[in-house]
Amino acid sequence: MKNTEINILEDVELNNPIFIEALPGIGHVGKLAADHIIDELGATKFAELYSYHFPPQVFVDEDGLIENMVNEFYYLKSLGEDKRDYIILVGNSQALSPEGQYDLSGFILDFIEDFGVKEMYTLGGLAIGHPIEESRVFGAATDLEIIETLRELDIEIRSADGGIVGASGLLLGLGKLRNIRGACLMGETPGYFIDAEAAEAILGKLANLLNIEINTDKLDERAEETRKMISKAQKMEQEIVNRSMGAGEDDLRYIG
Amino acid sequence: MKNTEINILEDVELNNPIFIEALPGIGHVGKLAADHIIDELGATKFAELYSYHFPPQVFVDEDGLIENMVNEFYYLKSLGEDKRDYIILVGNSQALSPEGQYDLSGFILDFIEDFGVKEMYTLGGLAIGHPIEESRVFGAATDLEIIETLRELDIEIRSADGGIVGASGLLLGLGKLRNIRGACLMGETPGYFIDAEAAEAILGKLANLLNIEINTDKLDERAEETRKMISKAQKMEQEIVNRSMGAGEDDLRYIG
Amino acid sequence: MKNTEINILEDVELNNPIFIEALPGIGHVGKLAADHIIDELGATKFAELYSYHFPPQVFVDEDGLIENMVNEFYYLKSLGEDKRDYIILVGNSQALSPEGQYDLSGFILDFIEDFGVKEMYTLGGLAIGHPIEESRVFGAATDLEIIETLRELDIEIRSADGGIVGASGLLLGLGKLRNIRGACLMGETPGYFIDAEAAEAILGKLANLLNIEINTDKLDERAEETRKMISKAQKMEQEIVNRSMGAGEDDLRYIG
Amino acid sequence: MKNTEINILEDVELNNPIFIEALPGIGHVGKLAADHIIDELGATKFAELYSYHFPPQVFVDEDGLIENMVNEFYYLKSLGEDKRDYIILVGNSQALSPEGQYDLSGFILDFIEDFGVKEMYTLGGLAIGHPIEESRVFGAATDLEIIETLRELDIEIRSADGGIVGASGLLLGLGKLRNIRGACLMGETPGYFIDAEAAEAILGKLANLLNIEINTDKLDERAEETRKMISKAQKMEQEIVNRSMGAGEDDLRYIG
Repeated sequence: MKNTEINILEDVELNNPIFIEALPGIGHVGKLAADHIIDELGATKFAELYSYHFPPQVFVDEDGLIENMVNEFYYLKSLGEDKRDYIILVGNSQALSPEGQYDLSGFILDFIEDFGVKEMYTLGGLAIGHPIEESRVFGAATDLEIIETLRELDIEIRSADGGIVGASGLLLGLGKLRNIRGACLMGETPGYFIDAEAAEAILGKLANLLNIEINTDKLDERAEETRKMISKAQKMEQEIVNRSMGAGEDDLRYIG
Repeated sequence: MKNTEINILEDVELNNPIFIEALPGIGHVGKLAADHIIDELGATKFAELYSYHFPPQVFVDEDGLIENMVNEFYYLKSLGEDKRDYIILVGNSQALSPEGQYDLSGFILDFIEDFGVKEMYTLGGLAIGHPIEESRVFGAATDLEIIETLRELDIEIRSADGGIVGASGLLLGLGKLRNIRGACLMGETPGYFIDAEAAEAILGKLANLLNIEINTDKLDERAEETRKMISKAQKMEQEIVNRSMGAGEDDLRYIG
Repeated sequence: MKNTEINILEDVELNNPIFIEALPGIGHVGKLAADHIIDELGATKFAELYSYHFPPQVFVDEDGLIENMVNEFYYLKSLGEDKRDYIILVGNSQALSPEGQYDLSGFILDFIEDFGVKEMYTLGGLAIGHPIEESRVFGAATDLEIIETLRELDIEIRSADGGIVGASGLLLGLGKLRNIRGACLMGETPGYFIDAEAAEAILGKLANLLNIEINTDKLDERAEETRKMISKAQKMEQEIVNRSMGAGEDDLRYIG
Repeated sequence: MKNTEINILEDVELNNPIFIEALPGIGHVGKLAADHIIDELGATKFAELYSYHFPPQVFVDEDGLIENMVNEFYYLKSLGEDKRDYIILVGNSQALSPEGQYDLSGFILDFIEDFGVKEMYTLGGLAIGHPIEESRVFGAATDLEIIETLRELDIEIRSADGGIVGASGLLLGLGKLRNIRGACLMGETPGYFIDAEAAEAILGKLANLLNIEINTDKLDERAEETRKMISKAQKMEQEIVNRSMGAGEDDLRYIG
């Protein structure tokens, strides 16, 4: 295998598509929102990305089946009032290393540029570490025109008091260098549980922004499923930490 | 030296071989089981793999001889009722870095694919952190047909409550992308000692699965030997940790 | 994107330019000094460097605009009594990994050598961990002639009781191998706040060294701005640390 | 600069030379011994190795001069009763990363193989963590014939209770794959100070082994110098640790 590979499942023609990214991150706000869009609006998976930048592991699903670490590209055609096409990127992992983060973001941008993407939205959470009455949505963007649009939709502008770590930030930053415009929407979340309300807040603003409709009735159900999957992932995280620490007596990374 | 190299010791023709992997991991369950198969059934080493992804060190054996970090390929011909050929992968280390794990797994899959491997079993331990009355064997697989076979052999299916870190998981996951079918067998182990009973439990299930016979009388003896080797490895692990910490006054990684 | 890229904004001819480096480091002494020179003397940005060795993130500015991690090259023409040209390197980050540090330093040296650079000064802070009455300036250099010049300007020679970590050290060291002469000026600083006084001390010595004049009246104002930006960066640092630790319940790097 | 470069200072013809390695390590036992041989027997430096695997820093010497991280090759001609030629490798650092360790060891072996090296000795310390009455010398080797020779010289064989981390181990291990024979001599040391006695013990055994004479009268003096240099290096180590931790308020790796 090359460092990173894309497996095309369906050759698809898209017209000036909007790109939406929601890889795993804080509070799983973005992931939850994007998975919901995919299910609710019936998006079709057309490509899978595998990379040696992902964690060196597999997941096991409910049936005992092995699942690779993967990023998945879905498309939606002629959606909403504006009849726009969409590419949605979701998955079960991000690159582990800093260099891997850059490498994968460049790879993904190469891929979506071939479809003519000129506009992107990345979805994530903004952890604030304490309970929230009502989850606000924060935004940052690649140009002032988009910032203005965000303001008109009552999205709060995240100004100069932080940054965006990982794919949601890098795709926008590196995309800007390629003249792809876009914004990051961040749902305010305590950050320590799977936050369906933050995801719902983001979906509301995204629907306004894109002139589409998204029914959020089943979002709570989805949050529950995600909680189960995360419990699984946490156990693995702990396993990796234990291995790195050489914690248990025989729990070594290598042995004679 | 290239990043990873395979040194062929014997040119061997194999007919549709089954691949078994058991590199060092939790409780040394897999390693113990595979080393036992090699000795008990008289497997022949035919290739050695060296890689700069291994820990940067050598071991010293009982005679004072320097041993490289290495993965070793053995073969067995016309084994069991089904007269199948086998390739068995064992060794004294796994790749240290995440990228190295993917790189080596890809390299190993390239190598065994040349022999026509279409089926693989990876062996490991499942640490549960407390004493066990009788070690159960858990399984996960690349397709539902194999899952069904595992169930028929009273192997418990590990469903959705964890994953598989390292070579045992990656070889299956990346193998699946190349249409190699397989399963991981995990022997339940407290995880903090060399667990001959967990290895015996795995060997029993593997023998059933492959229609072969494996005498486990000498397994305890082997476990004792492994314990000695591990004590050695742990000292080195500690040394590396100390070096990383710059713990001792003069114990620096580099010096003027 | 390639690993590291330079985006040329203006084709500029420079005559035997002096190179000044001041990337982010201890106490932001160097950065503060160089940013001040650029503003005060009206330097022109002519190239931007992007690299996958930088932290995998973006900053958000006061208006909510996405900012990439970047190093920036400015030039100044016919400056001071000696009418020398200058290239000044500033930015918001350094390479994260050791290999990245070497890689970027080599890349930068390749770039500035094309302009005929034979002389360089790198600016930094020297953290001493306690309050200071008056910030001294320490120096180290690539040859004894420059050491002598530093002494004549009452710059204290930092001899044999430490080293220089990061770009300020590596550019000089690797530059020396290419016959580029130079020195590092380090402003003594407690190290735990943005130190405008240490920057002023460095600017004074640098002005003497280069026979130029630098008005430092607005330096305090600039220090205040830098303090705000650093507060932002610290939050991100903390975020990254939290992510690495898997601190929060759902704050995992990757998830199913 | 390429990843690793060798700068040849003198073209030298050597006849079947013996290679001696003593890069920085535990207790500086090997380094101290090899630096002493170079000075005492008047070895000539003929090549310098620079690598981006070294720590990303420079040292500052007693005069304030910048020193790169470097490995240095010296030669000695027609030495001792056997009139053998020698290549000696010393330096101020080893590779930081595991992959870098392998990469550099391979690079060094390529270089010395061109001179026809078929025999090597690597020197190091064996930390035992408590005071020692008289420092013993331990050995490990690539074949039993050398082990026998070590025994005859009352060098204790280090058998199966540890390994050898870093260049001293890897050069022997990877060298063995190229049919270069050799041994590692390890001077027993408490490990927490610069141990001139352990270095003297090694030098005595090495002199016997190679049929050469080495006067050790000035070894204490040299140990004192080394102590000073190490104090310098430790401060830098601490600096790097602090930076990694983001310990101080403004002591960040990167900043806006």
